[in-house]
Amino acid sequence: MKIAVDAMGGDHAPDEIVRGALLYRAKGGGAELILVGREDDLRRAGALGEGITIRDAHDVVGMDEHPAKALRGRADTSIGVATTLVKRGEADAVVSAGNTGATMAAALMLLGRIRGIDRPALCGMLPTTKGKAACLLDAGATMDADEHNILQFARMASRFMEKVHSVERPSVGLINVGEEPEKGGRLQQAAHALLSGAEDLNFYGNIEGRDVMRGITDICVTDGFTGNVLAKGMEGVVDVFVDGIRHDIFGGPLGKIAGLFALPGLGKFRSRMDYDPYVSAPLLGVAGISVVTHGRARANMMRRAIEVAERAVATRLLEAIGEAVSTSAA
Amino acid sequence: MKIAVDAMGGDHAPDEIVRGALLYRAKGGGAELILVGREDDLRRAGALGEGITIRDAHDVVGMDEHPAKALRGRADTSIGVATTLVKRGEADAVVSAGNTGATMAAALMLLGRIRGIDRPALCGMLPTTKGKAACLLDAGATMDADEHNILQFARMASRFMEKVHSVERPSVGLINVGEEPEKGGRLQQAAHALLSGAEDLNFYGNIEGRDVMRGITDICVTDGFTGNVLAKGMEGVVDVFVDGIRHDIFGGPLGKIAGLFALPGLGKFRSRMDYDPYVSAPLLGVAGISVVTHGRARANMMRRAIEVAERAVATRLLEAIGEAVSTSAA
Repeated sequence: MKIAVDAMGGDHAPDEIVRGALLYRAKGGGAELILVGREDDLRRAGALGEGITIRDAHDVVGMDEHPAKALRGRADTSIGVATTLVKRGEADAVVSAGNTGATMAAALMLLGRIRGIDRPALCGMLPTTKGKAACLLDAGATMDADEHNILQFARMASRFMEKVHSVERPSVGLINVGEEPEKGGRLQQAAHALLSGAEDLNFYGNIEGRDVMRGITDICVTDGFTGNVLAKGMEGVVDVFVDGIRHDIFGGPLGKIAGLFALPGLGKFRSRMDYDPYVSAPLLGVAGISVVTHGRARANMMRRAIEVAERAVATRLLEAIGEAVSTSAA
Repeated sequence: MKIAVDAMGGDHAPDEIVRGALLYRAKGGGAELILVGREDDLRRAGALGEGITIRDAHDVVGMDEHPAKALRGRADTSIGVATTLVKRGEADAVVSAGNTGATMAAALMLLGRIRGIDRPALCGMLPTTKGKAACLLDAGATMDADEHNILQFARMASRFMEKVHSVERPSVGLINVGEEPEKGGRLQQAAHALLSGAEDLNFYGNIEGRDVMRGITDICVTDGFTGNVLAKGMEGVVDVFVDGIRHDIFGGPLGKIAGLFALPGLGKFRSRMDYDPYVSAPLLGVAGISVVTHGRARANMMRRAIEVAERAVATRLLEAIGEAVSTSAA
């Protein structure tokens, strides 16, 4: 198995990306890695080792660039070249911590969609208070989704949670403003009816915004607009609290002493909320494994992202999604 | 001025509601309060004092009841009776910490809408890292809002922030998945165009989910489905962190010692995040002041909710909204 890694994408590229690749191999990861980016920079960052090769690409799509424009205009971007490796069969998957829009655009332009899938969906993987991950989708791949798209999102996510996270019959919650089937707008009511009727799904029913982090269901499905706003809103609150804990509570001289006594507790909380192992997820619906991880990814998260890609390839996720869609449509 | 208080609504009713009413008067609040609820219970809770009267109502709409059904079926609910006082001119405003849906349903059924307003909107008031409040609306009053509804929401919220929170030319952000005007779905693109063209508004442009708590704009406007999911999602994260800080970090024996040293820092953080003064907001678009506060409200939040109602009456918020809508339509 070969996995192409966009070594120039993300806030801490290329150093942490290269370290993540080395870590993946050091921890026994079996896939060969192709690090895509400026060869000089990658060599300087220490990108050498068994099972690691470099593929030169001189350009990068910046975090704030317009993705499709950048990709169409420039042939030599790291994400473009890495995704092309998958298209040509020279790699089995691509992983990137870079501009999510660019990763999606590259995947859609170069790899296309799985037969039978109308629109792609992005997973936002979240820690829950139950100590397991929840998959929130669509986190922003598709605007103006209809109820049929949402049904497909639920099917794709079910296969993803089964295959990559070994969850048996993952439960699916439809994000809504209340529990009752008649809640929400036209889209949610129609989606509820479709999901209820889908016998291949383990549909739980409606869930609310606050239920996502409570881990009420393994999968939280919604349209891409709502999912994106919700994921970013929740992330915003996390930032405020992390900042408050760091600066307000443990910042002053007394706070620093408090911090010493609080070390075990802080460790406990951090490990409960640690989402490095599962924050990365493939872009679902694309005809190739393209794993998106967080722009803030450091080495450990990058290593985990590569593991997710490896698992998606090994468990034949794409085929499973294709089957799920064709069977249910029949 | 007279304000009707639903004394049976909320998790801590009637004791904390009564205490909040007493607190309001003790702090110099000038409005006369009519506490609506079971007279015996209210007397037992100490509802006596100058400027405080009791209006007997035997029934309550529970937090999980279907609001409209409950109101139609039972004539003697505290929120129904309290809202009727406003309808009859026996009170100038109603305040409730009870079932939000019931407060909305009572206001719409009994008071109706302001002339020119098509759909009502609920404000979710949030603390921001800038130390000021932001108004997130619609937090769930109207499903399937269109761009014209969103424009009206922005106008109503602008008057509310000016009048009740003394914010000059409050800035309005449209919640979207990115900054550029062409971002989002059909609804967001159409709303962006309308908001950009509204000269009476201080339109900032698009904002993202994470910008809400950063206080980028005074007002964050979106449709009622997205607003509800976002507000509840953010609240869910707050709960997780508050719980984590309490139990994981400061829970164990060492944590308890840490807690002593961290007291000043915790106080600082708590006061930065304290939203008692502004969490309460009127239901916008309704032809009467109906202030909704949090179901978890204790005395101090209840006192602040009454102050918000008082200020909305004193500053003639309803007239200002009516004028804003009729002028802009002309």
